[in-house]
Amino acid sequence: MRGVVMYAPGDVRVEEREDAKIIEPTDAVIRVTAACICGSDLWPYRGIERLKSPTPMGHEYIGVVEQIGEAVQNIKVGDFVVGSFVASDNTCEICLAGYQSRCIHNVMMGSVGTQAQLARIPLADGTLVPTPGEPDEDLVPSLLAASDVLGTGWFAAVAAEAGPGKTIAVVGDGAVGLSAVLAAKQLGAERIIVFSRHPERQALAREFGATDVIEERGDAGAAKVKELTGGYGAHGVVEAVGTEESMWQAIHSARAGGYVGYVGVAHGVQLDGLKLFFTGVHLHGGPAPVRRFLPELIQLIWDRAIDPGKVFDLTLPLDEAAEGYKAMDERRATKVLLTL
Amino acid sequence: MRGVVMYAPGDVRVEEREDAKIIEPTDAVIRVTAACICGSDLWPYRGIERLKSPTPMGHEYIGVVEQIGEAVQNIKVGDFVVGSFVASDNTCEICLAGYQSRCIHNVMMGSVGTQAQLARIPLADGTLVPTPGEPDEDLVPSLLAASDVLGTGWFAAVAAEAGPGKTIAVVGDGAVGLSAVLAAKQLGAERIIVFSRHPERQALAREFGATDVIEERGDAGAAKVKELTGGYGAHGVVEAVGTEESMWQAIHSARAGGYVGYVGVAHGVQLDGLKLFFTGVHLHGGPAPVRRFLPELIQLIWDRAIDPGKVFDLTLPLDEAAEGYKAMDERRATKVLLTL
Repeated sequence: MRGVVMYAPGDVRVEEREDAKIIEPTDAVIRVTAACICGSDLWPYRGIERLKSPTPMGHEYIGVVEQIGEAVQNIKVGDFVVGSFVASDNTCEICLAGYQSRCIHNVMMGSVGTQAQLARIPLADGTLVPTPGEPDEDLVPSLLAASDVLGTGWFAAVAAEAGPGKTIAVVGDGAVGLSAVLAAKQLGAERIIVFSRHPERQALAREFGATDVIEERGDAGAAKVKELTGGYGAHGVVEAVGTEESMWQAIHSARAGGYVGYVGVAHGVQLDGLKLFFTGVHLHGGPAPVRRFLPELIQLIWDRAIDPGKVFDLTLPLDEAAEGYKAMDERRATKVLLTL
Repeated sequence: MRGVVMYAPGDVRVEEREDAKIIEPTDAVIRVTAACICGSDLWPYRGIERLKSPTPMGHEYIGVVEQIGEAVQNIKVGDFVVGSFVASDNTCEICLAGYQSRCIHNVMMGSVGTQAQLARIPLADGTLVPTPGEPDEDLVPSLLAASDVLGTGWFAAVAAEAGPGKTIAVVGDGAVGLSAVLAAKQLGAERIIVFSRHPERQALAREFGATDVIEERGDAGAAKVKELTGGYGAHGVVEAVGTEESMWQAIHSARAGGYVGYVGVAHGVQLDGLKLFFTGVHLHGGPAPVRRFLPELIQLIWDRAIDPGKVFDLTLPLDEAAEGYKAMDERRATKVLLTL
């Protein structure tokens, strides 16, 4: 099968890999119909995370089930499925509490590499959610978004306690931040403030439900949120960047007792405990338990109630994945969809 | 009036201070009937916090209202009252959401100095809660505990989501940690694990409801919690120490998606963002909004349903406050009550 392999920072190749196959009886193999490049794939691309050897890439995927292991019961060959970027048994206490991304048996899908024609999905019964049928072509980007960015933005909005009457601020105007705007709107937030300096992203944020845009960053940005909220700060804030500045921007944008949902992978962040203590915020985040939300998200997409696929602004065939990485690295693209 | 003044690390004196009086129309002046020494009073006593000048001490208090300002409406002269260690208006959005300790007009009572015969209470209507009547002598320590340590432990247990069916771990066996054990029990927790190496504190923890005691600390202690909980970790953890080690001990004792309520004042703590990210816990804490819980706590004490006053293991007249500071500093006492 053809698949993406990263050899070194900046060196992404599409080459022949050994076909994915069933290893454990709980596995399924899917024929991937669309995959994408994640912001987190840029960490090794930029050399911030070190690769030990050539590494198959990708952890987001939708596709059709080709084979199932003998212990798989809920998923059938031919099902069109969406799965999370973390495989989970969906039966342990952690999964049952809605934290499938930290399942006691979790497998990070990045270790599988879904930017490929075929992908082995561990714990298929727990991980995969079948769609109501074969999706129309126009639904493909949105279903793919559900696999990671939409589910992650949704989790962050839930962690920020987005809901009726609430003011929610969103730090980060990438695919996850924009998805969080969409989620906050769906969850009923009254006012949605997005931090963005990028005209096209501002426009999509407004289309997704943002009511206010702030161009200032850091403490100046947080001060602007306070100004817009009677001096109190937002009820909830989504952090979708993952730097120390963005974390404090989010924390300081929230009111005392407010909620910060952080999903930016926090590279090089040190949080001063005493400073955090006196903010009095609720801080919750981590790898999003996308699986918790998938059935609901798939239905919303199927009903055309939401169109999260709009976060993709570049579509390329799998064989041109290297150009996709380059475009995201150079910020020419927010999010790249790879067709197969 | 007589009152405690700290001149320098280790130098605590009881001396004549100017009588407390009404300054703002929203003030009340109370005759303090009991006050106490807080673990946080030891920070300046040990020179970890710097004093700029001789400083009146104390922020916990119960007493009888002697005078009220002309804008005070809910509190009457002669009322026996309990108040929080933070004065609050109890009408702003932050207070109404239950975060009175971060009230937009909050006044830290440490700036008043309640280890004295009289104390000015700002924002009296919002801050003070009258008891149902003049308390019996045996209720005095418990009502005083409600003013800070009980309310703080209670908040931490609520932040840790203590409730029926839950396993709650408590890091810290001081007055706040022990109060959190009592709170977790009252809130219905099924299993309460306390970290302690101190036989007398272990005994009081068990009396308050602890089911298990762990003597190991740090990651070894956290590993023990996982061992006791089927490999998952506690549903919720209270952190009541305030060091970097105790914070991680608490975070690592919680399961993924679990709740950490931290109320130890986090001196010199730096939290690594990436480590925190992958734990997936909910982190919430800060100066406890004791006022939120006071009506309920006073009633429980009045009904003799709880006896949090047991955390006091040394009672001294106000004039011997210096000995009280010394006893706490040398860990000869957990918590000192000052009588007036």
